[in-house]
Parts: sequence; structure tokens; C-alpha cells
Amino acid sequence: MRDLSKLLDLIASFSKENPFPTSPLELYEPCDYILTLGGKRLRPALVLMGHEMFDDDIGVALPAAWAVELFHNFSLMHDDIMDAAPLRRNEPTVHSKWNTTTAILSGDVMLIYAYRFLARCGDADTVLRLLNIFNRVATEVCEGQQLDINFETRAKVSILEYTRMIELKTAVLLGAALEMGAVCGNAPAADSQQLYEFGRLAGIAFQIQDDLLDTYGDPTKFGKQVGGDILQNKKTLLVLKTLETAPDSDCRALHNWMQTDAENAAEKVAAVRAIFDRNKIPFLVAQEKLRFQQEAFQHLEAVRVPDSRKLILRGVVADLLERES
Amino acid sequence: MRDLSKLLDLIASFSKENPFPTSPLELYEPCDYILTLGGKRLRPALVLMGHEMFDDDIGVALPAAWAVELFHNFSLMHDDIMDAAPLRRNEPTVHSKWNTTTAILSGDVMLIYAYRFLARCGDADTVLRLLNIFNRVATEVCEGQQLDINFETRAKVSILEYTRMIELKTAVLLGAALEMGAVCGNAPAADSQQLYEFGRLAGIAFQIQDDLLDTYGDPTKFGKQVGGDILQNKKTLLVLKTLETAPDSDCRALHNWMQTDAENAAEKVAAVRAIFDRNKIPFLVAQEKLRFQQEAFQHLEAVRVPDSRKLILRGVVADLLERES
Repeated sequence: MRDLSKLLDLIASFSKENPFPTSPLELYEPCDYILTLGGKRLRPALVLMGHEMFDDDIGVALPAAWAVELFHNFSLMHDDIMDAAPLRRNEPTVHSKWNTTTAILSGDVMLIYAYRFLARCGDADTVLRLLNIFNRVATEVCEGQQLDINFETRAKVSILEYTRMIELKTAVLLGAALEMGAVCGNAPAADSQQLYEFGRLAGIAFQIQDDLLDTYGDPTKFGKQVGGDILQNKKTLLVLKTLETAPDSDCRALHNWMQTDAENAAEKVAAVRAIFDRNKIPFLVAQEKLRFQQEAFQHLEAVRVPDSRKLILRGVVADLLERES
Repeated sequence: MRDLSKLLDLIASFSKENPFPTSPLELYEPCDYILTLGGKRLRPALVLMGHEMFDDDIGVALPAAWAVELFHNFSLMHDDIMDAAPLRRNEPTVHSKWNTTTAILSGDVMLIYAYRFLARCGDADTVLRLLNIFNRVATEVCEGQQLDINFETRAKVSILEYTRMIELKTAVLLGAALEMGAVCGNAPAADSQQLYEFGRLAGIAFQIQDDLLDTYGDPTKFGKQVGGDILQNKKTLLVLKTLETAPDSDCRALHNWMQTDAENAAEKVAAVRAIFDRNKIPFLVAQEKLRFQQEAFQHLEAVRVPDSRKLILRGVVADLLERES
């Protein structure tokens, strides 16, 4: 069994050995650029960890892992245009560094390259199984992004709808990454399905944690500005939980804060946090996260391989879900 | 052998039986919209015609045909954003009817749906062969679009570079459509390759004809405004041929017209046409077209099936290439 840092090394080597073409430069340079902005390479690592549970010959799984990473970066490149985001990881986004045309076309070719790497994953039967998983999840990610866009302008969003949105937009890809790894390792269908469920549910827990950290994270550890969601009037799970459980007066107060752009950012963040706090929202949301997390790990336990094969994956995901909130 | 109208009927039925999901409506409605704007359905028909040369059981080829049509419409949807085109076939483009975000995301999901239909084309070996062709040509179409964008702002473009651009941007997809049809019909590799070359070369001839028709077409027959390329200062083959063969004075005159937006559109079109005419440019460009056309048909003749199997395809492509210019 290889540990996470060894797997990340293998991904880095694979990407170096499989660069984009150099021409037309204007098309491929932005692809290289977004890939060098960093990121944890969590998704390709999940492919490899899913694979390692069933097989030690990692050759087939590497192009699948890279396909998933390219897909993820394609979706970031296009989402950044849609969100008019100027920065990603403190660097200019592709559409701000170049322009929208570039970000559209380079994103398109990155998606197509994801499929090119998929086509290299072993025999035709394996490729077809991977293709079906990848097509399903790629569709779902687009649907999740559309729901996210829809929710921005909708007055009322239920917690169920919100959970479904984060599931489609981000969680299913984590599940599919594990599932694809398992398929590369010739896992029985029942086991690859359990891994998919593990990744999907852990992914939902991870997104809920992200909502919590954005408002309650340790500013010295959290990568983004704490309170960013509040200042952007985002309908996070904290907001939706408040609107569902708090008394009318607090719902109206929250609603009013969300209708206005902050003149004093610190004042707005403090006021909204106070509403959350007095309604025990961080606790309720943390409970929600825990529910998904616990259900997730049940699926990992159900995978029929020796426990020693699960140690790395279990540890990596547990670490991710236990960041201080 | 089915004739073109029968094949187009089958494509229409297949698309009706395989609609996009209805939800999220905002994501899929623009996909339906662009598909109903018409278009000749030439590319899916080429898939089916390629298939009919080798096999009568059309079931496997229909999803491949539809994949190619979806890919083509994905590229139109994204190209229209990049070109800031307000109209397509006299109807609003997706980004003008909705917005850029919608045109990006709906285009993305259309491309993914193309791959979904590919995955339904028969056994795993056939799917993998199709996937490799499709991935290659999809990459090339993006590269061609990038070259087209680059050429807009470049002072000098050679005829060779221009030909390569139209080859990548549009011709290879026509070749790949035929090749994919042949693969669905279990054609020998040598024959599917001949069909690819036929489609690719005929596609280049077709694009050259498009340049000719834009300036010299019969206004009552040509779908677009005659002279549109001249008014948009496009570097068409007519322009490049002039710059390569005409005396300096005419090159300078053409250059000057292309540097200015027309105050009087009819005057500009007439003046530029006069430059072309006195340098025999329409004749030279028509010769160029004929060269590709003749080479194309040699590849069709080389396909090792009875001539009766080639009649429909030969007739359809000959008709397309003999529109009055």
C-alpha cells in the first residue's frame, strides 16, 4: 500500500510525462496555468486510493486519476467565468488573466482531454465502464452548477434542495473518483458501489464543513477570508437552517442583513454570527455534517477487503473531515 | 440502401425518442432550442451514410450520429459566445436569448451528452474505437477555433495556414463522421480511413466554396447576406489569394478597405469584388476548391465496396459541392 504522499508523487510524475501539446499555445497555456495553481489533488488521489484497495499495479489507474483532475479543473475554469471570480487561490482566474473566450475554449479542450485519458485506461471493457461512470457524474456536476445558479435568485431554498445541490455539484465527483479507481482495480460491482457511496456522503459532509469553516473557521488556518459567505449573502446551510428553525424575529433580521451590502464588513459578520449563535446553528449544522460522515464510513466498512487495505483512505478522509471548525 | 431523406427521418425519430431531461429546465432548454434552429443535419447523415456502405442494421450507428450532431451544436453554442454573434439562422443565439453563463453550461452538458451517446454504440471495442476518433477530432476542432481566433488579429496569414485552420475547425469533423459510421459498420480500417480522407478533403472544398459563395453567391439562393465576409473584414481565401498573387497596388487597396468599417456597404463590397475580379481571384479559388474536391473523390473510389453502396454518399456530397457559385 502506498501512502498519500507517494500517490501524490505518482500523480505529479504522470502529469509531467503527459503534458498538453505546446501548440496552439493560446489554447493550452491556460490549461497548464490552472493546473499549476495548486490544489490538493484530492480527486486523483481518491482514484488511486480506490484502486489500491484492490490492486497494486497502478498503471491503469493513473490516466483515470488524471482524467478526473482535468475534469475538475475544466469545471473550475468555466465556473469562474460564471461566478465572475477574479481570483482562484490568490492568483488571477483564467478569464481575468486572459479573457472569457480563452477560458471557454481552454476549458472545453481540458474536458476533451479528460476523455482522452479515460480512453487509455486498460482494455475496452474497463474503458466503457469508466466512461459510463464519468459521463453520469459529469452530467450531474453540470446539473449541480445549474441548481447553484438557480438558488442565487430564488427566494426560498429548502435544506433538502441545498443538500441535493452540493451533492451534485461536488460530492458525486468524489464518489465517482473512488468508484473509478475501484473499477480500474477490477473490484466487484458491489464494492465499487460502496466506495461511491462513501465518497458521495463524505463529500456532502465535507461541503457542510466548508460552510461551517467559512463562518467559524480559525482565520490563521482557513484559506479564505472568514465570513466571506456572509458578506456575499450566500444561502449556506447555516442560513437555511436558521430560516427553518429560528424564531420569526431572527429570520427577519437575517433576511434584512442578506438584503443589504455591508457598509461595515466586521459589523455584518458579527451580527449574522450572533443570530446563528443564539439559535445554536453551528451545533445543528455540525450534527448534520456528522450524520453524513457516519453514514459515509459505514459504506467504507462494508467494502469486502482486509482492513489493512482501507487504512490510508480512511485516514485521509477522516483528516479532511476533522479540520478544526 | 436508404436515401438521404430516409436517413434524415431516422435521425429525427432518434432525437425524438432520446430527449434531454426536463430538469433542470434552465440547463437543458437551450440544448433543445439550438437543436430546433434547423441546420441540414449533414454530420449525423454522414455517419449513417458511412455506416450504410458496410452494414444495413443501423441501430448502432444512430447514437453515434446523434453524438456527432450534439458535438457540432455544442461547438456552435460556444463559438457564438466567442464571436459575440447575435443571430444563428436568423434566430437569437443562446447567449443572446439567455446569457453567457447559460450558453457555457448548456454547451458543456451537450458535449457530455455527445459522449453519453457514444457510450451506447454497440460493444466495448466499438465504443473504444469511436471514442478515440471522437476525442482526436474534438481536440482538433478546438485547435481550429483557436487558430481562427489567432488569425483575426494577425497581420499575415498564409494560404497554407488558412487551409490548415479550416481543416481543423470544420473539415475533420466531416471526415470523422464518415469514419465513425464505417467503424459502426465494422468496416476494415483501410476503408474507414479512406472515408475519413474523403470527408476531410470534401470538407476543405466545402469551406472554400463557402468563402466563394459569401462574395459571389446568388443572393436569392445563399442563406446569408452576400458580401458579409467583406464587410466583416474577414481574412477569407479570396483575400489571402489576392495578397499572394495580386500586384502591390491591389494588395494595398484591399488592405486599406479591410482597415476601415464601411460607410457605404454596397460601395465597399463592389470595390473589393472589383479587386478580386481583375486578379481572377474567383477563378483561382475555384481551382483550389476543385483540387481538394477531386482528391476527395479519389478516396471515395478507393473504398472497397460495390459502387452501388457509394451512390447515395457520392450524390449528396457532389450536390453540396456543386451549388452555384
